[in-house]
Amino acid sequence: MKKLVAEFIGTFWLVLGGCGSAVLACNYPGAGIGFAGVALAFGLTVVTIAYALGHISGAHLNPAVSIGLWIGGRFDGKELIPYIISQVLGGIAAAGVLYVIATGNGSSIGGFATNGYGELSPGKYSMTAALVTEVVMTFIFLLIILGATDERAPKGFAGLAIGLGLTLIHLISIPVTNTSVNPARSTSQALFVGGEAVGQLWLFWVAPIAGAILAGLVYKAVFAAKPQTT
Amino acid sequence: MKKLVAEFIGTFWLVLGGCGSAVLACNYPGAGIGFAGVALAFGLTVVTIAYALGHISGAHLNPAVSIGLWIGGRFDGKELIPYIISQVLGGIAAAGVLYVIATGNGSSIGGFATNGYGELSPGKYSMTAALVTEVVMTFIFLLIILGATDERAPKGFAGLAIGLGLTLIHLISIPVTNTSVNPARSTSQALFVGGEAVGQLWLFWVAPIAGAILAGLVYKAVFAAKPQTT
Amino acid sequence: MKKLVAEFIGTFWLVLGGCGSAVLACNYPGAGIGFAGVALAFGLTVVTIAYALGHISGAHLNPAVSIGLWIGGRFDGKELIPYIISQVLGGIAAAGVLYVIATGNGSSIGGFATNGYGELSPGKYSMTAALVTEVVMTFIFLLIILGATDERAPKGFAGLAIGLGLTLIHLISIPVTNTSVNPARSTSQALFVGGEAVGQLWLFWVAPIAGAILAGLVYKAVFAAKPQTT
Amino acid sequence: MKKLVAEFIGTFWLVLGGCGSAVLACNYPGAGIGFAGVALAFGLTVVTIAYALGHISGAHLNPAVSIGLWIGGRFDGKELIPYIISQVLGGIAAAGVLYVIATGNGSSIGGFATNGYGELSPGKYSMTAALVTEVVMTFIFLLIILGATDERAPKGFAGLAIGLGLTLIHLISIPVTNTSVNPARSTSQALFVGGEAVGQLWLFWVAPIAGAILAGLVYKAVFAAKPQTT
Repeated sequence: MKKLVAEFIGTFWLVLGGCGSAVLACNYPGAGIGFAGVALAFGLTVVTIAYALGHISGAHLNPAVSIGLWIGGRFDGKELIPYIISQVLGGIAAAGVLYVIATGNGSSIGGFATNGYGELSPGKYSMTAALVTEVVMTFIFLLIILGATDERAPKGFAGLAIGLGLTLIHLISIPVTNTSVNPARSTSQALFVGGEAVGQLWLFWVAPIAGAILAGLVYKAVFAAKPQTT
Repeated sequence: MKKLVAEFIGTFWLVLGGCGSAVLACNYPGAGIGFAGVALAFGLTVVTIAYALGHISGAHLNPAVSIGLWIGGRFDGKELIPYIISQVLGGIAAAGVLYVIATGNGSSIGGFATNGYGELSPGKYSMTAALVTEVVMTFIFLLIILGATDERAPKGFAGLAIGLGLTLIHLISIPVTNTSVNPARSTSQALFVGGEAVGQLWLFWVAPIAGAILAGLVYKAVFAAKPQTT
Repeated sequence: MKKLVAEFIGTFWLVLGGCGSAVLACNYPGAGIGFAGVALAFGLTVVTIAYALGHISGAHLNPAVSIGLWIGGRFDGKELIPYIISQVLGGIAAAGVLYVIATGNGSSIGGFATNGYGELSPGKYSMTAALVTEVVMTFIFLLIILGATDERAPKGFAGLAIGLGLTLIHLISIPVTNTSVNPARSTSQALFVGGEAVGQLWLFWVAPIAGAILAGLVYKAVFAAKPQTT
Repeated sequence: MKKLVAEFIGTFWLVLGGCGSAVLACNYPGAGIGFAGVALAFGLTVVTIAYALGHISGAHLNPAVSIGLWIGGRFDGKELIPYIISQVLGGIAAAGVLYVIATGNGSSIGGFATNGYGELSPGKYSMTAALVTEVVMTFIFLLIILGATDERAPKGFAGLAIGLGLTLIHLISIPVTNTSVNPARSTSQALFVGGEAVGQLWLFWVAPIAGAILAGLVYKAVFAAKPQTT
């Protein structure tokens, strides 16, 4: 149970920190943090929760991560569905809090940091470009996670490597899809915006999960220590 | 006594570094560091003091942190009041030095990086939005502190996780309240600006402390090792 | 064989992350990440792969790095050519994926983050300035790599020091050559752009390799522990 | 002797990286790295050399650091003068290389990242503001160095804390003096610019050294372990 609370709070923080920085601070006139600041914010949500609650739940904060770790043999399948539910609920709670804050100066929520392709892509990238981007980015993200938490990797640094990896992914791909690689983060924002944002939500479940499964298979087949000893 | 000197110097550095970067460098024409640079500066004050003086005093640098650690069972209540006094005095000393520097080219101190809501909020966010923001941000900040210094977390990384957590909090919330989560930092700046900045100071004591107490209670109830062994 | 797959994937990520951030996000109107964001992205590709796959292949991701490590006595010459081939192929694969994404909104690929001098230098710097820059930057880059992986250096931090070193190199030299210090990264981008970009490619093999060889010789002669014990 | 080569190369890199990023990339039209990028570059020169050559020479890279460590009882006074000479020569060599690169597109060297006050201060801050700034910044810088390398601090993190501390100092004070805290860095740039830049050079020796001496005394008196055991 404490694991599920940790995943709820952690994903709450990922969405509030990442999407919050995008909604509140990205385009502030004259001193806005821009895409680089948003990228840093998303990554630091993972860095902070990895060190704060990683010893509780592993700090997945993302259904695609949980699935990739399960495929890679690092996570018990019995916990998969409860983890995913906690993550989605944590994201929705964050979107609710962000809604209260963001509308607190009379603004509308605007795009609310939703993910999208075509007309909903920040740079108007096609569905194909979005699919390729989300699959490849999540594939590498899971390789980073599986590799940095491998027993042969330097101890203690995984939280930094994984979080800064999420920063890097955002530095590349915000213009394409606003960057998902995380179905929970996509779902919470789409639910508050509604309409076409919900209509495009399928891609931000399918593509990250496909990339994550592929990474789990590749890491297990090519890079895993065999037999794994402690 | 050496602990109180460490808290004084550390909070001096937090206020001089964080508010100093905001006052002197945020809006420098053409090359200013913006909110992202200020966010980095605030966080790095904690990173640097955590590694430099953490072994002396624990590097709280913030009355809300001391209170949250006390509630969470990590800090002796007998030291609470002396710590808070040292922190507030360190902040005031920093504001004094910053005053000398900032007016050294004939400028006025302007907003002097004060915290505020309503008309004093950078983005004109309401008191309610400010309250929610400061409570939630400090709640998560203390969870990060309590978790990253837990004996089960990777050794040595707490200073980075906590400092970068403060950077993240600023990346999100500077537009709302100029970001406090730290009553000492709010007090020093308000005292030099006076007027309505002092009138709003109550919120930047009440909300961070409320968030910190909540985090102390939640961490102790849900996440703490029981019984805690070393 | 798993080493070559790791070098392929790692260099794929270096080129996709570094050049991808430059092509897709550097100049996004109003919120672009600028040269500082691109510099961070290049560095974080190395940070992430160093922790994820460093225990597999050493995470060279760069022919100049492999050569410098070989000269410095840290890498077996028999593996040199296969490593370099994997790195170049990984870079080309990344450029292909980036081509698909970047043209997915109807844009042309533009400069595609190619390296160049004279008319192809972002700031129109001469061939001599480009040569000096690439030799000196790669020389220091290899010193950082050789030093940070020395048995006397703190354990575990090499991936951060080396990756952030690549960020630093980009913070300095993007205006001069778009920063190479890596012949694989230069080759992949030049092949997709063709023309004069290919005509200038020789410099981005010669200069980084010269700097790397020099660093290997200097480190071995001046700084190496003698005799080296484990 | 290998220590002096390390100090020469390390200070060469500090000046080339820090001042080079300022001269070449700070104000690049549309994508320049700004003061925040320059601040990051200065800090990363220290991060990289600390991990690469810290085990050789301690990676001081700065006469004020060597003096502060000597006063603090951490550095042998017999090595002080040779260290300072190596640092100044390394800085001058870097300024020479930077001169070749920066003029390689027909530009003049402009301000060449010199330090200054009054008319030579970026924000036209007075000599008094410059003195206060340089003394206080170097005082805290040395406290960070003395604290983070204390035997009671977490092992291995000193290079990150100290380097990021230099980043922080630049985030605050570039507008005031262009940030020195390092007489070697000030000297090399002033020699190439000449005139009033040389005339103001005294302040960038006196103030950093005064701050460093003060920090050495304070750390030894208040914070040092007594007796120090290993």
